Amino acid sequence: MEEQKRQAALIIELQELLGKQGVLIDASDCAAYSKGARYGDGVSLAVVRPNSHEQVVGIVRICVAYQQPLIVQGANTGLVAASTPDRSGRFLILSLERLKSHIQIDPINRSVEVDAGVSLHELNEALLPYGLFFPIDLAANPSIGGMIAANTGGAKLIKYGDVRQNVLGLRVVLMEPAGEILDLQTALRKNNTGPDLKQLFVGSSGAYGIITRAVLQVHYLPKQTATALVVPRDQAAVLELLQVLERDCSEFLSAFEGISGGALQAVLRQFPSISNPFFPEDCPNYCVLVELSSGITVTHVGFDLQDILNACLERLFGDVVQNAVLGRGAELWHIRHSISEALRHEGRIIAFDVAMPRSSLVAFRADALACIAKDYPWIEARDFGHWADGGFHFNLVWPHLVTQAYDIQTVQAIRSTIYDLVVLRYQGCFSAEHGVGPYNLEFYQRYTSILAQHLAGTLQHSLDPSRLLGLTWFGRELS
Amino acid sequence: MEEQKRQAALIIELQELLGKQGVLIDASDCAAYSKGARYGDGVSLAVVRPNSHEQVVGIVRICVAYQQPLIVQGANTGLVAASTPDRSGRFLILSLERLKSHIQIDPINRSVEVDAGVSLHELNEALLPYGLFFPIDLAANPSIGGMIAANTGGAKLIKYGDVRQNVLGLRVVLMEPAGEILDLQTALRKNNTGPDLKQLFVGSSGAYGIITRAVLQVHYLPKQTATALVVPRDQAAVLELLQVLERDCSEFLSAFEGISGGALQAVLRQFPSISNPFFPEDCPNYCVLVELSSGITVTHVGFDLQDILNACLERLFGDVVQNAVLGRGAELWHIRHSISEALRHEGRIIAFDVAMPRSSLVAFRADALACIAKDYPWIEARDFGHWADGGFHFNLVWPHLVTQAYDIQTVQAIRSTIYDLVVLRYQGCFSAEHGVGPYNLEFYQRYTSILAQHLAGTLQHSLDPSRLLGLTWFGRELS
Repeated sequence: MEEQKRQAALIIELQELLGKQGVLIDASDCAAYSKGARYGDGVSLAVVRPNSHEQVVGIVRICVAYQQPLIVQGANTGLVAASTPDRSGRFLILSLERLKSHIQIDPINRSVEVDAGVSLHELNEALLPYGLFFPIDLAANPSIGGMIAANTGGAKLIKYGDVRQNVLGLRVVLMEPAGEILDLQTALRKNNTGPDLKQLFVGSSGAYGIITRAVLQVHYLPKQTATALVVPRDQAAVLELLQVLERDCSEFLSAFEGISGGALQAVLRQFPSISNPFFPEDCPNYCVLVELSSGITVTHVGFDLQDILNACLERLFGDVVQNAVLGRGAELWHIRHSISEALRHEGRIIAFDVAMPRSSLVAFRADALACIAKDYPWIEARDFGHWADGGFHFNLVWPHLVTQAYDIQTVQAIRSTIYDLVVLRYQGCFSAEHGVGPYNLEFYQRYTSILAQHLAGTLQHSLDPSRLLGLTWFGRELS
Repeated sequence: MEEQKRQAALIIELQELLGKQGVLIDASDCAAYSKGARYGDGVSLAVVRPNSHEQVVGIVRICVAYQQPLIVQGANTGLVAASTPDRSGRFLILSLERLKSHIQIDPINRSVEVDAGVSLHELNEALLPYGLFFPIDLAANPSIGGMIAANTGGAKLIKYGDVRQNVLGLRVVLMEPAGEILDLQTALRKNNTGPDLKQLFVGSSGAYGIITRAVLQVHYLPKQTATALVVPRDQAAVLELLQVLERDCSEFLSAFEGISGGALQAVLRQFPSISNPFFPEDCPNYCVLVELSSGITVTHVGFDLQDILNACLERLFGDVVQNAVLGRGAELWHIRHSISEALRHEGRIIAFDVAMPRSSLVAFRADALACIAKDYPWIEARDFGHWADGGFHFNLVWPHLVTQAYDIQTVQAIRSTIYDLVVLRYQGCFSAEHGVGPYNLEFYQRYTSILAQHLAGTLQHSLDPSRLLGLTWFGRELS
């Protein structure tokens, strides 16, 4: 009864602050906010939708006063259930989708000041007239705040870095002192005036504070790209190819995406409109989508990027390179971007987002494939990976039509086995670019040293002593 | 008496741990460690020189047990007095100069695992056979640990990033729990498995923990470079030139170093062996040293970087560009690298290491020059700056032979005036790449928000509750 009274009073205060349309209470209105893009399907107390920084501050003050737990949500495209509530119904969702009025571009500084609720596509649309873009290449369309909270990577990391490397400044609303604005909103590339506090909030799954605005470094759009789908001699040759390209075309290399034969075949099988770029009977065991990009125009003193790539591959032909489709960028990227959807058609996906030192990728893949073939022979490997940054989606498909019925215990056993291999044998990590949330928190607890967990918890406790923010508790007591 | 006993017992324990040669006590032996490269001239209780990670752990345990304050020192090349003691004589210096046995290169991962005491030159020597280097371009030869503690920038930041962007992993010895090793020593480019704790220790002036080892991303050495010393039409044209180069040669641009006429003239005056690259009578008011670099060899399908740069400048000739010396890289860089020494010959230097949004540089420089000319007409501006990353060395010279005798109050007034201009009017910062130490701590306290100081202090208190580590206390109580 006490709890119902508290909730009712809370909702009234929130409605006074935000107006009726700023507070969603009906279960049907809240449903879309309570279900995650891949995992997470809960129930929320209500959804609040501030449209100004002042309203965010007000919400935090009210929540702290009422000791009301809350989850911050951007575009709700995250893949680890960090932006959706559990089933208890006790969480308030703070959606920043309406906090998007501010996009201020400084073309000379090559930076942009942007509200957290602005989406990646909206930002890139605003930047386009300046020939600029925010170079995090994703299939999804997340909010900028969410991208910072997750430290999104993407397919072009090797050329442009991850989100962290492009964040120049942040504005954060703190839980403690309640609703205070931590203004770290500089537009500086060099700034060493004390500990760089903004780093705390990047890639912390929204657990340390509420990011409401950012200053981002942006980049000039490339003026030409060159593409090739390369069939390497064998797995070891993938790394040889990467080394040669980095050494000889280093500043151009913008993507190096490994695609397994299984993943390629799934795309060709599921999408008949996509034709095999190789001869029909000749689907390779493995291939690599290579992209170079450059700010130099083609007309510029006869500089043609595709020529450079072709010449480089030609020198490797017969040794490192066995076959290659040259050019045809749109077609090749379409294949790459169709993998995830193709796999969904083929069965239940068991997705992985691991990373390791590049030098471990060949051995890891061989071990992981052998392990699946031996213990789970009905599971199909459909992996692909960003080899250049060590990120690897060792995705598996549990086909619809097999005698073994899908069961979650087996899936969990497979996850454990693969993560153990990645982390314990190959010094990798279980979450490369998706971050940590309820979906994979147990693996954080398993693989992170107790000392690191303790320190992460100490920080979290300082920033949110009542543990109101988010579902993810990074802490652990030292024994 | 009590204090003397404590010190004597401490020294005995340290000697037992490190042997006699690991503990320097004589004032003459300690002197070199107690004087900084530019500022800081103190007295130390002793200097301890561990040669293993275990010894560092042992030293920290002893220091915490004895409540003995200590300062960590790498190569002692820092410019803000953060690695040297004050005059109290109560500090122990922990020099990591002997912690340098480990350099392990992974060429496939393009990374290196390296002990904190290894110097930048030693690291680059080890990387050379692989065609790799650590691309932080500095005149000094700091230790890797010191570079991480200061988050060094350098002249090639625009192409390669700062130290932070190239740190993949760290090993840190903590003060609390005393001597525990926080192992964040991954070699991963993508790793979002919880808050990125290593970021805490980068650029924190050694106040949060003792960095003993790092995993760094390294890069392939460029195979060709192109250089030009460009005279822009006027100050605004410097930014126009920068924009065109970034847009049209973006991935090649590796340096964009503004040099004032005053700085250039000082070099020509002090070093008669250096000839004016322009006609003798034609020393420009301002010029920019531009460098492009590339991994592509010259023979590679007729790709010549100098041609690309020349063509780009030619298109700007008569408008943005008034004059330019093309090529002659070694000669032009020699001029750039001679500025600091030339200025030392001309008088007492008042050095600045500020940064601001690039879009503010022209206005700031005009304001700052006008202010000096008006209020301090005997002071000579000899500024130079990394315009591409917004870093600016607005260096001034107080000439030896002027009627106004050098006095520190005037220097302090000038520093205050310039910093106010940078921070309050142009949203810049007072320390771009030198970090914060006793030399400039008062400006940290002046310009950093109370909330940010409070948070920095909360972190510091968690990591070092007895405040034993370093001279720099970043904290502040909220009122």
